[in-house]
Amino acid sequence: MVITVLSGGVGAARLLDALSDAIEPSEITAIVNVGDDLIMHGLTICPDLDTIMYTLAGLNNHELGWGLAGESWRVMEELDALGGEAWFRLGDRDLATHLYRSQRLGDGATKTEVTTELCDRLGVRVRLLPVTNDALATTFDTELGRLSFQEYFVRHHHDVAVTAIDVVGANEATASTEVLEALREASRIVIAPSNPLISIDPILRVPGVLDLLEQRRDVVVGVSPIIDGRALKGPADRLLAELGHEVSCLGVLDFYKGLIGTWIIDETDADRADEVRSRDVQVIVTTTIMSEADNDQRLSAAVLA
Amino acid sequence: MVITVLSGGVGAARLLDALSDAIEPSEITAIVNVGDDLIMHGLTICPDLDTIMYTLAGLNNHELGWGLAGESWRVMEELDALGGEAWFRLGDRDLATHLYRSQRLGDGATKTEVTTELCDRLGVRVRLLPVTNDALATTFDTELGRLSFQEYFVRHHHDVAVTAIDVVGANEATASTEVLEALREASRIVIAPSNPLISIDPILRVPGVLDLLEQRRDVVVGVSPIIDGRALKGPADRLLAELGHEVSCLGVLDFYKGLIGTWIIDETDADRADEVRSRDVQVIVTTTIMSEADNDQRLSAAVLA
Repeated sequence: MVITVLSGGVGAARLLDALSDAIEPSEITAIVNVGDDLIMHGLTICPDLDTIMYTLAGLNNHELGWGLAGESWRVMEELDALGGEAWFRLGDRDLATHLYRSQRLGDGATKTEVTTELCDRLGVRVRLLPVTNDALATTFDTELGRLSFQEYFVRHHHDVAVTAIDVVGANEATASTEVLEALREASRIVIAPSNPLISIDPILRVPGVLDLLEQRRDVVVGVSPIIDGRALKGPADRLLAELGHEVSCLGVLDFYKGLIGTWIIDETDADRADEVRSRDVQVIVTTTIMSEADNDQRLSAAVLA
Repeated sequence: MVITVLSGGVGAARLLDALSDAIEPSEITAIVNVGDDLIMHGLTICPDLDTIMYTLAGLNNHELGWGLAGESWRVMEELDALGGEAWFRLGDRDLATHLYRSQRLGDGATKTEVTTELCDRLGVRVRLLPVTNDALATTFDTELGRLSFQEYFVRHHHDVAVTAIDVVGANEATASTEVLEALREASRIVIAPSNPLISIDPILRVPGVLDLLEQRRDVVVGVSPIIDGRALKGPADRLLAELGHEVSCLGVLDFYKGLIGTWIIDETDADRADEVRSRDVQVIVTTTIMSEADNDQRLSAAVLA
């Protein structure tokens, strides 16, 4: 089975990790959000690509929930002492990734090529594809004014009211040929339980992606990131409410209207299954919380069923 | 006494350190070469500015002879493991400087402004001025083809034959207003015992600098970097020979033809003093080797005499 997974950060990383235990990793392609990529200190940083790459390489930091295991913070400590912008924490090991990427992009390589090089070096066999080689910038209109993704997410801990989200550059971006092929040729397309508004939507906004998903709806399987009216992690629940969506597995399904063939919801939402079916969408009810190994396997089995 | 010192890296740093022990540091301005600046890994790196800044802050690494004391190499080790370009060694502490500078340049600050910010933060009271805010790139035509400064100097350990040196961007560069002022207003202008061809010449090539030195020749004091036919450090002797200059204190003086009012030569070259005078240049003979503290003081006294 050749599967393609639309992916954000942590939630997608866990699902991809579980899937790569279940099937041959090289048959899995992750199309990854780049709307939260940023240039800081001159370095091009791709948080979602790196979270997935580090997780699949077994290098992710379980204590922090982000970044690399065995990380040190020498550069940031010195930068802080110099009065530099140190609120976006970049570990010493992690910085090597950003230096590598920035050098190669400066040499003229594409983000897709650099990602492949890094994955090869780290032994990651799942294929990671940034949705586009062009620059996207997810931005937030908030009570504090317009914020970049990481200003909203990290600097303000996503604790400000949002009135609108824009993905600057999306209309003019070109999906890579590898991405379009991976969507055309997949026997199953999975939408990971990532934040629909800020992780998946920037992928959908790149011209060509949405059309292909609509055409291939029968093989599209989505996993609800909202369980019992709440997000397990991050601001998905709050953002859905602020932007006028129902904060439920149904609300997310409606946000993905016309794209989903099968919708996977958590057991605690079993009472919403009939409503899913009423939208002409198949439903699978299972444990979707991936914090325990058994659940990971159960969810990946449901996705592959 | 307000003095302005044309400066490269290590040799100039030592002289500036000695001078700032002798007179009020804030009355000293260093105009610093930026021809060996580079962009690597997306970061803007200014080796000469940093060498002087670290030395004057008392943070220089005496064991290595370059970089910061107490340095660690975590990022480079990881970058090397990723297969990145790790031949130009950037320590973790040092990287913080490059991240700070790159971020501020990206914000729209000039190299001059960023240098002042870094010096303030590190407690450096000598005023450091990059000769220009524009990009210069000293390049070498060699037996291996055209090499950038750091390819020549670090990657190939300046151990290749050079047929020509170019400073790309110099003709179009603009000396900063602070630099021109510092040359106009100095009661003494010093040419540090830095490499004349690759440290001082890129400064002289920025339009306006040479004219001002010629006009102010009476107050220009130069220190010969060649002692007894040899450079204490680096490729100055080899380069002088390869490019057709006499490898002596006289050869360097002739390279600076028309700029020098007083030429300081080492005791071992005392027999060349008359030849200096015959060029209508005053001569001071003293110990110019700064490896011992007393010599530092003696040289700085000669410069200030």
